[in-house]
Amino acid sequence: MSNAANDDTAELVQRLMDGQRAALARAITHIESGASLAPRILGAIQSAVGNARVIGFTGAPGVGKSTLINAVIRELRKRNKSVAVAAVDPSSPISGGAILGDRVRMGEHGSDDGVFIRSISSRGHLGGLSATTAQVIDLMDAAGWDVVVIETVGAGQSEVEIAQIADISVVVCAPGLGDDVQAIKAGILEIADVLVVNKADQPLADQTCKQLVAMLELRHADRREVPVLTTVATSGDGVERLVKVIEQQYQENVEATRVRGPVQRFQYLIANAAGRQLQEQLATSSEKAMHDMCARVSRGELSVDSAARSLLEAMLR
Amino acid sequence: MSNAANDDTAELVQRLMDGQRAALARAITHIESGASLAPRILGAIQSAVGNARVIGFTGAPGVGKSTLINAVIRELRKRNKSVAVAAVDPSSPISGGAILGDRVRMGEHGSDDGVFIRSISSRGHLGGLSATTAQVIDLMDAAGWDVVVIETVGAGQSEVEIAQIADISVVVCAPGLGDDVQAIKAGILEIADVLVVNKADQPLADQTCKQLVAMLELRHADRREVPVLTTVATSGDGVERLVKVIEQQYQENVEATRVRGPVQRFQYLIANAAGRQLQEQLATSSEKAMHDMCARVSRGELSVDSAARSLLEAMLR
Repeated sequence: MSNAANDDTAELVQRLMDGQRAALARAITHIESGASLAPRILGAIQSAVGNARVIGFTGAPGVGKSTLINAVIRELRKRNKSVAVAAVDPSSPISGGAILGDRVRMGEHGSDDGVFIRSISSRGHLGGLSATTAQVIDLMDAAGWDVVVIETVGAGQSEVEIAQIADISVVVCAPGLGDDVQAIKAGILEIADVLVVNKADQPLADQTCKQLVAMLELRHADRREVPVLTTVATSGDGVERLVKVIEQQYQENVEATRVRGPVQRFQYLIANAAGRQLQEQLATSSEKAMHDMCARVSRGELSVDSAARSLLEAMLR
Repeated sequence: MSNAANDDTAELVQRLMDGQRAALARAITHIESGASLAPRILGAIQSAVGNARVIGFTGAPGVGKSTLINAVIRELRKRNKSVAVAAVDPSSPISGGAILGDRVRMGEHGSDDGVFIRSISSRGHLGGLSATTAQVIDLMDAAGWDVVVIETVGAGQSEVEIAQIADISVVVCAPGLGDDVQAIKAGILEIADVLVVNKADQPLADQTCKQLVAMLELRHADRREVPVLTTVATSGDGVERLVKVIEQQYQENVEATRVRGPVQRFQYLIANAAGRQLQEQLATSSEKAMHDMCARVSRGELSVDSAARSLLEAMLR
């Protein structure tokens, strides 16, 4: 890299850390596009990372997630917090969708200097969407934003990962979506720090809350308690309470050291990738130890988890 | 265990392998409830396992999956194949849902000796829902059923696993469900051997097919081709073709040795569990090697996947 390019990068990073929106926007574009100067930018901001609170909002399309995020932003602005939003949901009306790239429709917060909204295109570099998103969070964090909001649909592997790298994950659903609740139950419920039933002015809201509480009770007893709240994002009902509960959960997570610092954000992703790689190796393994384990599990002599534990112990010995 | 109990188990297994439906039903109940004689039953049937073709049907509620399975059963019966169905979907109208247990509504095939339908309750023993389901498949296989159909919603981790232990996975969707397609894209598309757009008489069917084909093209070039078919399950349109394509895919999978034998069915589950366990270990690791990797990934010097590969190699050395 030429000295001129180095100087340009240093200047970009300086302007980003000074809080200039255009510099942040350009840096994100470099990360997203996998530009050759991405590592230099990321390296240079590391010392400034670690102050933002990162909140993930996950929910199926149609639950009013974007309207709720807008209402939450309004509440945070009342408290003088600056808010940066990374919208990973390609259908998000908040950002106008990743398809529009930088030309985002910012809605009601478009003219507010304390709000920065950016959509993340669904094709990530440097190890996938999750890694790109984690790096964008770092950029927003280093740029001095108090709160970073990540918006995802929560449908796929990467999106569950993204929700997990947030300090607090809020899972949003809507009343009467029985099928939706069914789907949420399986994967997304596991990652929720807070559950919100939005559109709570609709008839089946109570029933949906009860279903969610019942599902939570089915989980292991050693899990932390997950509050179930109701909101009406369009009127703002319940939003102040939601912001308070998010703050409480954040404090509890800090005490339990479940808040991921700038480095731990990537630890989860690396651990996940290593797990997947081991799984692929083992799924195609032709070793006798694996064959014997399969035979024992198929005969019901051993559980799948015990077999996996034995294999792992033997490998790591 | 007393000799009497041993004799009873031997007799149950004998009657199961003779094709008696009541014996199969009772054996499944023992496996599902985690009865102490489950390992004896599973051990005794191993030599008879390995002849059935196992087809998974996965799709969100509302896509007409159960109607389609009924139509596929009709088609298989025309070809003189006997069919056992394990319905893991708790909302399945085919089985009447796991909530009703054995008292299943068998619909049109209720009086057909060549069809056996059973719902699997969503709480599995011996290592989870997936392991229980794999063991139930083994029982149905040993009992001499030509084809075993597994019905799942495909929402959660276990359900994706279950689809993956099938020899052939058919993913069903319906026209115009943009959100549905979105959700399918993420996780389920990866496991499909065949994609079906059901309710193809509805207006947006063509568009949904095109979306699916476009999504498939986004995948890595080294992937096998996945046929996209249309059906109208209520009239039977396209079902004969679907059954033919399933048969072709089965043959191709046999050639590519992607068909999982009775032992390999469990290999996938064990590999999966080992991957998850390693992931949990690494996600909470405080070792310096992990910390250094995180720092390098956060600085954009290394991809998440490369970092994971290095860690794994170092561990397994």
